[in-house]
This record gives sequence, C-alpha cells and structure tokens, in this order.
Amino acid sequence: MFSIRTDLALEAREMYKENARQEAEVPGVEVETEGSGDVSVTRVKISSSAGVEAMGKPMGNYVTIEAPRLRENNPPVHEQVCKTFAKELRNMIKIDEKATVLVVGLGNWNVTPDALGPKVVSNLMITRHLLEHIPEQIDEGVRPVCAIAPGVLGITGIETGEIIRGIVDRIRPELVIAIDALASRRMDRVSTTIQIADTGINPGSGVGNKRMGINAETLGIPVIAVGVPMVVDAATMANDTIDLMIDSMIKQIDTGSVFYETLKNMDKKEKYTLIQQILSPYVGNLMVTPKEVDTIIDDVSKVIANGINIALHRGIGLEDVNRYVH
Amino acid sequence: MFSIRTDLALEAREMYKENARQEAEVPGVEVETEGSGDVSVTRVKISSSAGVEAMGKPMGNYVTIEAPRLRENNPPVHEQVCKTFAKELRNMIKIDEKATVLVVGLGNWNVTPDALGPKVVSNLMITRHLLEHIPEQIDEGVRPVCAIAPGVLGITGIETGEIIRGIVDRIRPELVIAIDALASRRMDRVSTTIQIADTGINPGSGVGNKRMGINAETLGIPVIAVGVPMVVDAATMANDTIDLMIDSMIKQIDTGSVFYETLKNMDKKEKYTLIQQILSPYVGNLMVTPKEVDTIIDDVSKVIANGINIALHRGIGLEDVNRYVH
Amino acid sequence: MFSIRTDLALEAREMYKENARQEAEVPGVEVETEGSGDVSVTRVKISSSAGVEAMGKPMGNYVTIEAPRLRENNPPVHEQVCKTFAKELRNMIKIDEKATVLVVGLGNWNVTPDALGPKVVSNLMITRHLLEHIPEQIDEGVRPVCAIAPGVLGITGIETGEIIRGIVDRIRPELVIAIDALASRRMDRVSTTIQIADTGINPGSGVGNKRMGINAETLGIPVIAVGVPMVVDAATMANDTIDLMIDSMIKQIDTGSVFYETLKNMDKKEKYTLIQQILSPYVGNLMVTPKEVDTIIDDVSKVIANGINIALHRGIGLEDVNRYVH
Amino acid sequence: MFSIRTDLALEAREMYKENARQEAEVPGVEVETEGSGDVSVTRVKISSSAGVEAMGKPMGNYVTIEAPRLRENNPPVHEQVCKTFAKELRNMIKIDEKATVLVVGLGNWNVTPDALGPKVVSNLMITRHLLEHIPEQIDEGVRPVCAIAPGVLGITGIETGEIIRGIVDRIRPELVIAIDALASRRMDRVSTTIQIADTGINPGSGVGNKRMGINAETLGIPVIAVGVPMVVDAATMANDTIDLMIDSMIKQIDTGSVFYETLKNMDKKEKYTLIQQILSPYVGNLMVTPKEVDTIIDDVSKVIANGINIALHRGIGLEDVNRYVH
Repeated sequence: MFSIRTDLALEAREMYKENARQEAEVPGVEVETEGSGDVSVTRVKISSSAGVEAMGKPMGNYVTIEAPRLRENNPPVHEQVCKTFAKELRNMIKIDEKATVLVVGLGNWNVTPDALGPKVVSNLMITRHLLEHIPEQIDEGVRPVCAIAPGVLGITGIETGEIIRGIVDRIRPELVIAIDALASRRMDRVSTTIQIADTGINPGSGVGNKRMGINAETLGIPVIAVGVPMVVDAATMANDTIDLMIDSMIKQIDTGSVFYETLKNMDKKEKYTLIQQILSPYVGNLMVTPKEVDTIIDDVSKVIANGINIALHRGIGLEDVNRYVH
Repeated sequence: MFSIRTDLALEAREMYKENARQEAEVPGVEVETEGSGDVSVTRVKISSSAGVEAMGKPMGNYVTIEAPRLRENNPPVHEQVCKTFAKELRNMIKIDEKATVLVVGLGNWNVTPDALGPKVVSNLMITRHLLEHIPEQIDEGVRPVCAIAPGVLGITGIETGEIIRGIVDRIRPELVIAIDALASRRMDRVSTTIQIADTGINPGSGVGNKRMGINAETLGIPVIAVGVPMVVDAATMANDTIDLMIDSMIKQIDTGSVFYETLKNMDKKEKYTLIQQILSPYVGNLMVTPKEVDTIIDDVSKVIANGINIALHRGIGLEDVNRYVH
Repeated sequence: MFSIRTDLALEAREMYKENARQEAEVPGVEVETEGSGDVSVTRVKISSSAGVEAMGKPMGNYVTIEAPRLRENNPPVHEQVCKTFAKELRNMIKIDEKATVLVVGLGNWNVTPDALGPKVVSNLMITRHLLEHIPEQIDEGVRPVCAIAPGVLGITGIETGEIIRGIVDRIRPELVIAIDALASRRMDRVSTTIQIADTGINPGSGVGNKRMGINAETLGIPVIAVGVPMVVDAATMANDTIDLMIDSMIKQIDTGSVFYETLKNMDKKEKYTLIQQILSPYVGNLMVTPKEVDTIIDDVSKVIANGINIALHRGIGLEDVNRYVH
Repeated sequence: MFSIRTDLALEAREMYKENARQEAEVPGVEVETEGSGDVSVTRVKISSSAGVEAMGKPMGNYVTIEAPRLRENNPPVHEQVCKTFAKELRNMIKIDEKATVLVVGLGNWNVTPDALGPKVVSNLMITRHLLEHIPEQIDEGVRPVCAIAPGVLGITGIETGEIIRGIVDRIRPELVIAIDALASRRMDRVSTTIQIADTGINPGSGVGNKRMGINAETLGIPVIAVGVPMVVDAATMANDTIDLMIDSMIKQIDTGSVFYETLKNMDKKEKYTLIQQILSPYVGNLMVTPKEVDTIIDDVSKVIANGINIALHRGIGLEDVNRYVH
C-alpha cells in the first residue's frame, strides 16, 4: 500500500481516494460533515481493520475543524473557532467532571513552528495545586488540571513518552490531552485546521516524529490528541506543485497525443519517490512554513488553550478564563 | 533559634557567628578555605546535629566558589571558574563513570532571574539517547546524561519533586544534579557565587521556594544541588542597609551617650521582624536583582553547564563541548 | 534645595510637601483630582518658575492615572484604564486629526523592566505606510501613525535624542509621543500608575537616564511623554523602609526621651545621603522590580498601546484595533 | 531578458549562463576564485553596462564566501570563516582608520530567518559613545562604531531608507555597513554563504524586499552590504525540483521520442511562470527555511558580528572582542 505521510486523517482519506481513483468511501471508514464557510467540522471514524489498513492510522475518532480565517488576526473568528473546538473536545471527554486531567505540550520551544504544544500549556488554567491548597477560593465547576511541556528527545535525552508515563504513574490523572504541531500536505491547511483524535499520539506523528506512542496502550488511561498543522513537508509541496503543473499542461495539449497520455499515466507513486530522492539531501533540514509563523502560533495557541479551558471546566466560560491564566 | 533565611551555607554560618557574637567556629561545623582573589573555594561540612541546628541546614558538604569577577564579560575568568567548579563537582560525584546522570533545571523560565536552571539545561551535552541509538559515533569517556526543566508549581500544577520522582522511577539514573537560582543576603554575592551541596534541594530553598525536597530521601538516589544567587531578598537588603547605617552612626556619636547605647543594644531580631512587617505588603512581589540580569544569566548558565559537561564525562574537555551542544 | 530623584510629578510634589512639612500647595503648582477607587486622575500644572524650582521639573501639564488593580490580570479593569488614559491623552493632543504622529518607544528591550517602550511600539496600529500605499483600504478617521524603538545609548552608540531628531527632520511629523519606563519612589506605584506630560522627555529621566532631551526645544514639535513606573530605586526603598521603621519606633518610646528627640530630628537629607553612600557600590547595578515583571509588562504595554491607538484615530474604537495590529 | 530573482551575484551569473546555454563568461563581468573546500571566495566584478543588464544588478564588486560547514556547530570552522570574511570586508573599506562607521541591521526581529541584521547589531562592539565620553579607557586602534536595527516598514510605517538617511544626516558617519538576510535559489547556500558588496542595498533585495535603496546615491556616503541567504523562495524550490526531475526523466526515456523532445524543449521561462501562478496564492506567505534556523541564526550572527568587529578596528583581534560586547 502506497502512502505519503500525513498527520491528518482527513488527508489520509483524500489520498486513499486519489490513489484508488474512486468516489466511494474508504472501506471501514465513516464520515460526517457539519457547518461550512468560516468553520466546518468533519468527523472521521475508523471502525474496522480494513479502515486501519487503508488509512494507515489506528481505529478511533478523528474530528477535524477547518477554519480558513483562523490565520487572520480576527478576535470574533478566533472566538467562534474556540467554541466549536471546545464543543467537539467536550464530546470526546468521557471522564467525571471532577477527575484530574494532565495536558501535555509536545514539541520543541526553540523551533518556532514546533512550539505549539509548549505555548498552549503556558496559556492554560492550571488548577490542580489550587484545588489542593486553596479549594475555598476556586469557583464551582472547576476540575483539577495540570500540565507539562517536557521538551523533545534531542533536548532531554529521554523519550517524551517515558517522561509522561513517569508523571502519570505518580499523579494518576484520568485523562491525558496531548497537544502537538503537525505536518500537512496542503499549504492552505497550515494554521487553519485543528484535529482532535481519541487515539492519542502514535509513533512517527507530529513535526518532531515521536518514536514512542503516548496513548491508552502505553499510559493505561485515555489520551486525546489535539494537533494543528504548522508546516508543509517540502517534498509534498514540490509534488503538489508538479501535479498542478501537469494538470495545467494536460488542459493545454491535444487529448490523444503521446505526451498527453504520458502525463496522464505518469505513476503517482513513482513520481513522488523520485521527488523524495531529489530532495533527500535537504528534506531532513528544510521546512516550509508561513512567514508570519511567530505571530500565528501565538494566536492559535490561545485559541487551543482557551478551548481546552472551557471544555474541561463545567463552570468556566471564555469571560472567566483570564482570572486563572498567568 | 532566630534565623534569617539564606540559601547559602556560607551565609548561615556568618549569621550564626554574628548573632552569637563569637569568633569560634559554629559547633558541629568544619570549614576549610582555599584559593583567593579571583576564585576562592570554601568547604563547609555540617557533621553533627548541633551543626544542623545552628545552621538550619541538613548534614552534608557545602562547597562555595566565590568569583567576584564572574559578573564581568571576561572569557578567561569564566573558564577559570568553570574549571574550578568542575573539579569541585567531580569530587562530589561518587558513581561509576558509565552510570546515567539526570540533570534537573529548576525554576521558572518566564522570570528572568529564576531561569538559571532551564538555561543551564539548554547548554548541556545530552548524550543518553545518542549512546542508546548511535553509540559508535560517540567518543570514549562519555557517559549517558539526560536532563529536564520541569517548570514550577504555578505553571504545571504539580510539585516539581513529584515530576522528578516520576521520571527517576522510570529511567533509573544513579545520580541527580539539580540546578537552582538562589537568594543571597548580600548584594555582592549575586551572580558571583556558586554553591555545590551533596544534600540535594530541601523544602523552602531557592527563589521559587520548593515545598517538597528533591534529595536522597525522596528520590532514593544521591542528589547534588548546584545553586547561584540571582536575587537579594528585599527585606534583607533594607536590613543590611540599616545595620550599616547604624554602624556608621555609632562611629559618629559619643560612646556612653543614651543614643549610643540604644543603637548598640537594638535587638537584631526585633529590628528584622519590624522590617519584614513594614515590607510585608510588598515583599512577596518584589525582587532586587542586577540591572544586567538578562545577560548575566546567559553567561553564568554557560559556566555552570560547561562545568557539568566536563565534570560528568572523563573524555571531554572544554574544547570538545561544542560538538555536542545545540 | 534637597531632592530625591523621581520621574513622577505627583511624587515630586509629595516630597516637596514632606520636606517643607507643610499642608499648603507647592508654590506655582496647581492640582486637580478626579475619580477614585479603581481609577483616579490627578492633574498637576507647573505654571511658574517657582513651581519649576520647587518641583525640579519643567513647566507644563502632568496627568497621573492611578489604578491599583492594573497589576491584576483583569481585562475589564484594563479596559477601563485604557479608556481613561486615551481620554486624557486625547485632551493633550492639539494637532489636526489628519496630522502625522511619530511614537517613540524608549528603553532597552534586553532589560525586562526597561522594555516598556519597545513593547508598546510592537502593539501599535501603524498606518502611515498604509495611508500612503493603499489609502482606499483604510477606514475613515484613521491618521498616519509611524513608530520606532531606537534602543539605548549602550546598544547604538548614538544619543537616542539624535536618532529621533534625524527621523523627525526627514519625515516631518507634527507630534511625537515618547513612551518610557520610569522609576518610582513608592513600591505600590510600580506598574499601577501612568503619567502623561506635555513637557516631553527631559535629561536624567527614565530608567535608562537619558542625557539629551526629547522635547519641543530639541525637536521643534510638541512632545508628549507617557511613562509607567516599572522599578523602585534601591536607595529609595531602603530609605522609605527606614522612615517607616523610625515612625514605628517613635510610637513605641517615651516622648521627651533623648532617643525620641534624636530620631525625630534626624535630618532627612543627611540620612538619605548616608544610605546612598552605603549602597553606592551596588546601586548602579541593582533594581527592585515586581517578581512577575515579565507578564506585567506585557499587560501594561497593551493598555498603553491601545490607549494610544484609540486616542490617535477618531474613527477607531477598542473593537477595531485588532484588525490593524500585527 | 528573463530573470528569476536572486540576491546573490553568484547566482545571477549562474542563471545567465544556464539561460544563455553558454560556457563563456557573462559580458561585462570579471570573476576570480580563491580557496576551496571548507572556505572558498569568489569575487565578481560588474564593470560595464552590459554586465549590469546581463546580471540585473548594479555595477560594483561582489565577494561571495562559501563555507558549507558554517551550518555546523564547529567553533574552529566559524573562526576560519570569520577571519576570511573580515579580510574581504577590510579590503572593501576605503575610509580612514579613525573615521566613524554606522552599521545597520536590516530585517524584522519577529521573523526568525529575517532577524539576521538585528542579531548582528546586538553582537557588535559599539564604541562611538565610549570614545566620546571615556576615550582614555579605550584601546589604541579602536574607531567610533555605532549601529541601529530600525525594523521593517510594516512595524515602523517608515521606509527603512528614510530612517537611515535621517540618522546619517545627523551623525555624519563616513561609511554605512548594512546587514540583511537574503533569499537564495539553492537550498545548499542557505546559511553557508556570505556576500559582501560595495553597491549597498538596492530596491527589491533581501527577504523583506526593500522599496528604497540604501546606497551611495541615497545616502551620499559609501555603503557596503553584507548578506547571508536564510531562506529559499518556495517557487524557486519547486522549480529546481522539477528541473531535476525532468533531467532525471530525460535520462530514462528514448532519445528521439516525442516526450523526450517535449521535455527537452520545455521553455524554462514559461515553466517558471506557470509555477509562480500555481503557487501564487501561497508564495507570499510561505518560506522554506532550515529546521534549526533559530540556532543557526545565532551562530551566523556571531560570525558576521565578529568579522565586522575585527575588520573595523585595527587594534582588535578575536580575543579582544569580548571585553567590548554586551
């Protein structure tokens, strides 16, 4: 089975259908879409091993929120996305409203597009210690939340999964929410898409390519993964450009000509492999990212953090968050 | 027993002797001094429970390196301090040269003078993952070192000691080295003094006032604490100024006068308590720190990190460090 | 005339009255107060040379906004302060609503408490280039605003006043607004007070101690100075503590006793000089600042920047600002 | 004349020759190469209007230092590059050894790969104010150097050229050195190449695309431009990948076939225009940059800053620089 790497279930599905040249749904996959325009929600459910094989992703629920205007500096749009995200996240949380949650900000704070996780953590309402030491000063409907941004393997020398497991073993939360920057294959998805998955983080995913899973299997408790694409893979970008170019060329030449046929039948897999070989000396070291990534990541982090803040605490709305943050 | 809080054993000793108005050594304490001028070393050993009580610190060895010129941007001085520090640290490390070490950078990276620990961690040679995955590319005489900067209670909602214990339980190092920014009672010690103690970190110490110890008792393995004073307590500074002022006044007035006697007999404890009451609405929120703290902390972090780098690896000198850092 | 340095006209007045031990207003000074509790406004006008001499400040209008809760992370309070500040600033601006304004962010971005000016600049609506190149996309009631954060003498090697004058000579704005971090003599004023003065910046003021004025005299156009105290002078803090201590001692001892008289008559100037001598080896290098200065300065910068944004553009309210910033 | 934009004279030459499919030198251009392996130097001189037209760059000298290992964290290589750069820069400086130099750090400090200029400025020896106020404490052979990082048009609302001209008019230096991050068309040149040009900065160059020149014509004094490529243009990268792919395909198919001919004769300009159209919705917002750009830019800034430091002051070597920096 041929598969370009993508962190988004939405894209894995697109790619499967492109390769299979079929309109029908991927086997073992259920899809449902809602909303449109400014904020749309797609819910992909991988429900059988056929789906697992076709998608290259574990069984579970993947919710994708697409908000093309999230990249704008536009508070009302941010608020709308924040509320949609909170609602979808809340639907995935099955634990008691008083149970402790550990939020994990994955990624490297020294690499701007990979700093999403640590930045979200710094904007969270951290309440576990307050509920322990000054419960009388805390609002009704606030649950214990704690968080950590452990850094990446190159900085710590320890697999991130090991660090999280050590902490989970000691403080015994009932849910982990793991935040990570993702890679997309489409430039227009960067910083405009949020994926929530109840499958946790699986090896090979994310910008930093984790080697050990952070999921129910490794931690023994449910793990919800929240990700936003912040980079495009350089090989993917070159590949997509070439595809668009070929499509454009095809339109301009005689159907039936040898060239037309050659282009039309060019094997997609072979072409992508070729591009990867050509770019391989650089691909490991290059990333394609929006020019304004430094400001975009600040905005997106706040949207994600506030979405988590209002999803986790029954008694907290957007207007209350500021009293707890800093 | 009256005691102004200080993180430095050197200062606890000074204060004991001042209060006791005695020249003799503190009971249960052994002291040894070496070097002078640019870099001097004082080794304080608290060897009995009398010493523990007098000093308000646990039994153990406290080595203080004083380098008044460390605050200068002077590479040869930094190198000299770095080597002295490495030598003293090496003397305290009793584990095998191949055994794993976990370095913990305590403190809050958002509060400049408290960011010493995280900054040291970012300048360390991290080798544990390299020795695991590409041992053939690593020099002889390099041991596995890993590190973490877990953040502070207000950011994580978890006692730092709990996080460290969770990680230690999983990865089983044989030694922890914990780095922390300290408070001094003397302005001239700020960023010019390094303390190394084989007692670990004990509750109430450091700028951020830990509540749970990070020591052999809580972790089950030896813990060496490395600290550098980065702030002066505001009450302490006011107090010291007043003492100096009183000394200066005493010299100017008639011995035997009522005022002379009043000043001379003013109870030190009462005075300090008074100052604390006066400053109490502010003391929690104020810190006294050098104006150039942002650049000083970068320099000092490198000195500490490189000292640890060459102390931990038999086969590594200052000239080799750069190949491993970043 | 004895004078402790302060950047705030409000404090210069307090100190004059303390020293003169009088209740009457300072000669040549008019004072008017408004509001109370959360946000109060004091308008001090130095209207004669007697006032200039008494206050140690040039003739002009000094408006001080005091908002003890500005230090809290409380958006409604921030909004209230922002609007009050905008109103007072607007009252001081006498130029046409289409005339160009240059905002200057003074201070050193590498020294956290001195970074107020640069941080305000980074949150401003910059419109001059937009009105020049895409005027059709800009709202009615928006004027040309440009800004610069030139850095400090130690970083540039050029007097800040020279840089500003060079830029003013080329782009010919009709007003300069200069933002600067100030030193206060009272700890409770730090990050809770905003001073607006139509006198510009005068030599010796601000945390970084400018040597050359940035005012109507040097630039040839009006200069409004906006300042927020971010540090307390270390000598001032020690001095105030001692005063409070002496007051407290006086209450506890017999009136009429020699000691009582000595304390009561202790010369304030002599005492302060003594403290300065004692602290002089350190004073140049120490600052007293709130522990949370890194987050406080972010909040205060936004309040000041947004106040300037809505004061400068007739057609812009707080809800419009975000479309222009970043 | 068809021309892909590049900031490097070296690349303009390569592209001319590729398009002209000729081996001969570009008319009106003289080239000289020196060194090899770790550090090589190419000196391109555009000496006639034919050269200006062919290269799309003004008449003058362009020195390019290529050091493939500059990207490594390797101090001896950095030192070697630093000294080569200093030597080449010194050769271009024609003013008196006591004359004042203004260094300008162009670019936006909020966009990591564009922050080269501001970062170089922060590592420079700034001496102008010291020579004015404490000349007796300054070494022989030190000249007055001042510097500014003015920010970009979107941040200031003022053309950078206007700011520089205002400052030059007031402080009257005899030379400006302008530092800027560049765009390269080849991925392997990013952060491994330094270009020095005595032509100054011309409109349209650099990552931030200046609109107004910073050169002898606009400032009235000589301007030396120093640039390092930090990004690859996304369209260029896609284009180069496609070229490599086509080359690779050509090798695999029958010469003489229609497809072979089609590919071989595909018009380069038409293809690039097509790619630009395809990428145009994204190109403005995307950049391709090394993953480790945050650390690379710190290292490269120090190399450039120290090269300038030792080139500008006859009496200063690499070992003296630290006494002056900070």
